[in-house]
Amino acid sequence: MIDADAYAAARRAFDAKTKPRDSLGRIEELGCRLAGIRGFVPERLEAAIVVAAGDHGVAAEGVSAYPQEVTAQMVANFASGGAAINVLARQAGARLVVVDAGVAVPFEHESVRSLRIGAGTANLAIGPAMTDGECRAALAAGRALVEELGDVDVIALGEMGIGNTTAASALTAALLDLEPALVCGRGTGLDDEGLAKKIDTARRALVANVGGDPLTALGGFEIAFLAGVAIGCAERRVAVLLDGFITTAAALAAVRIEPAVADVLIASHRSPEPGHARALEALGLEPLLDLGLRLGEASGAALALPLLHASIALLRDMATFADAGVTDAGR
Amino acid sequence: MIDADAYAAARRAFDAKTKPRDSLGRIEELGCRLAGIRGFVPERLEAAIVVAAGDHGVAAEGVSAYPQEVTAQMVANFASGGAAINVLARQAGARLVVVDAGVAVPFEHESVRSLRIGAGTANLAIGPAMTDGECRAALAAGRALVEELGDVDVIALGEMGIGNTTAASALTAALLDLEPALVCGRGTGLDDEGLAKKIDTARRALVANVGGDPLTALGGFEIAFLAGVAIGCAERRVAVLLDGFITTAAALAAVRIEPAVADVLIASHRSPEPGHARALEALGLEPLLDLGLRLGEASGAALALPLLHASIALLRDMATFADAGVTDAGR
Repeated sequence: MIDADAYAAARRAFDAKTKPRDSLGRIEELGCRLAGIRGFVPERLEAAIVVAAGDHGVAAEGVSAYPQEVTAQMVANFASGGAAINVLARQAGARLVVVDAGVAVPFEHESVRSLRIGAGTANLAIGPAMTDGECRAALAAGRALVEELGDVDVIALGEMGIGNTTAASALTAALLDLEPALVCGRGTGLDDEGLAKKIDTARRALVANVGGDPLTALGGFEIAFLAGVAIGCAERRVAVLLDGFITTAAALAAVRIEPAVADVLIASHRSPEPGHARALEALGLEPLLDLGLRLGEASGAALALPLLHASIALLRDMATFADAGVTDAGR
Repeated sequence: MIDADAYAAARRAFDAKTKPRDSLGRIEELGCRLAGIRGFVPERLEAAIVVAAGDHGVAAEGVSAYPQEVTAQMVANFASGGAAINVLARQAGARLVVVDAGVAVPFEHESVRSLRIGAGTANLAIGPAMTDGECRAALAAGRALVEELGDVDVIALGEMGIGNTTAASALTAALLDLEPALVCGRGTGLDDEGLAKKIDTARRALVANVGGDPLTALGGFEIAFLAGVAIGCAERRVAVLLDGFITTAAALAAVRIEPAVADVLIASHRSPEPGHARALEALGLEPLLDLGLRLGEASGAALALPLLHASIALLRDMATFADAGVTDAGR
């Protein structure tokens, strides 16, 4: 799926620039990878950030430090421009698309795309979070959004949903065949008791949904939607910039549906959630940042976007040894 | 030196924002630290990048993959806007100041500040690189530049000088009392033989200059100049954003002269040079990026600048729980 010619063209271009070979390390690798994904060396990088929100029936188990109403409150905050991702999207010069994929209480606002699959998922601790039809609809909505966004080079994924680290933990445990205690973390701020409850909830979810499709049974509306966005990106050779644990779990599920997704993924950061490191490793991804970020909302992806822009700007604007009359040591 | 009130004010501001406490990890720490350095929470961050170039007599020992003429060629490349740092400074929206601190052959250009201490240093493998007067003059020129730059919040340090990883290695070994083999690396691309020669050269330098002032004996014009910039920043409560090994060695020397420098340092990245990790550890600094960067020119610092800008933009623009009507779980 990676276009070897475009990758090699970017590699040759970097090697001709006035700097020792490979001295910009992972920034050069990033530029080559973006070229390989797109199939050409982009002149500039058009970036969109898609933040999908959804509610989770599993919130009833008391697995979050925050009450469920916060999902809708944060969508309102995205709409009025006051959340971290609003600030970071502006800083990164990226278009921000906020999607209601199934918040419990609908929120009508011109800056929120209503692609609601339902009013929150069912409680995955006692049965499937979604029906087959709901999961299919969420995937299709994600794919359709990529088509609608048109000529973008990279889409950064983000999410909001109280309870969704529990869904991502159960989903990752199922997909990677891991014990829930190895993937569950403190999310947005659980204490020891809360973490124990979360692990127990994920264990019960795996038992209650044994044999079911992992994404349908253990995912969420926003998670399946983002998996659909990743599949749409693979179809259109658009790079996917992952954020934290939940978006990476969505990518893991997407790769099971469409293996070509693996080729378009770029990991922005590694969060302190233990499941995130496991999921990144399974996807063969080395993140760009490791800054203790655990907010979600695509905040880590937005913080990494300038590195992607820099890689393409260097390819476009740096002088070559020949242009600049600089002696090339050839290494 | 860190202003505890300003640091605490930034901490309180972050805690009131619509996100779980500390969920933006090191980005929050960065905003607090910038406030603590400046003595107030900046509304926005005015950044300058100072790249100082100098030649090194030790280049005669064959310790670089590149010939000495490349220093002057790269200064010309900076002047015509084709080097990596030109591209990255534009991307980061930072002012770029290129300083000739002592290139072997002077280069006259309106965009290069001529603050020449001499036409390259003496060979530190056989005696002191600089005279006491030259080192003092370089330090003073660095301090004076900070005064001239006026109301900036952060100055990113960068350098260019064929042979200067050998100088930085000898200087770091002397300052930290380490065996040269522990600090010497491949610089811009040495092979095994080149690395062995570099280690031998650093060892001879330590013997030849035993008892001398480390910065004077083992530094370089651009290294002493950048140490002066760091001292000037400490005097004026301006943050210093370090780049790679050479700028960090300069900071290490600056801290020996003026201990308050330690409080204004921020490490942008960790390079593969083994001495860099040692110097960062000695300064108690944890870098923001780890991307295999080994170009110098302030390229790593410029790549980290957007993270500093983001930390301040979040402090300025994010809504509080109270503003946005979001339920605060208090953790």
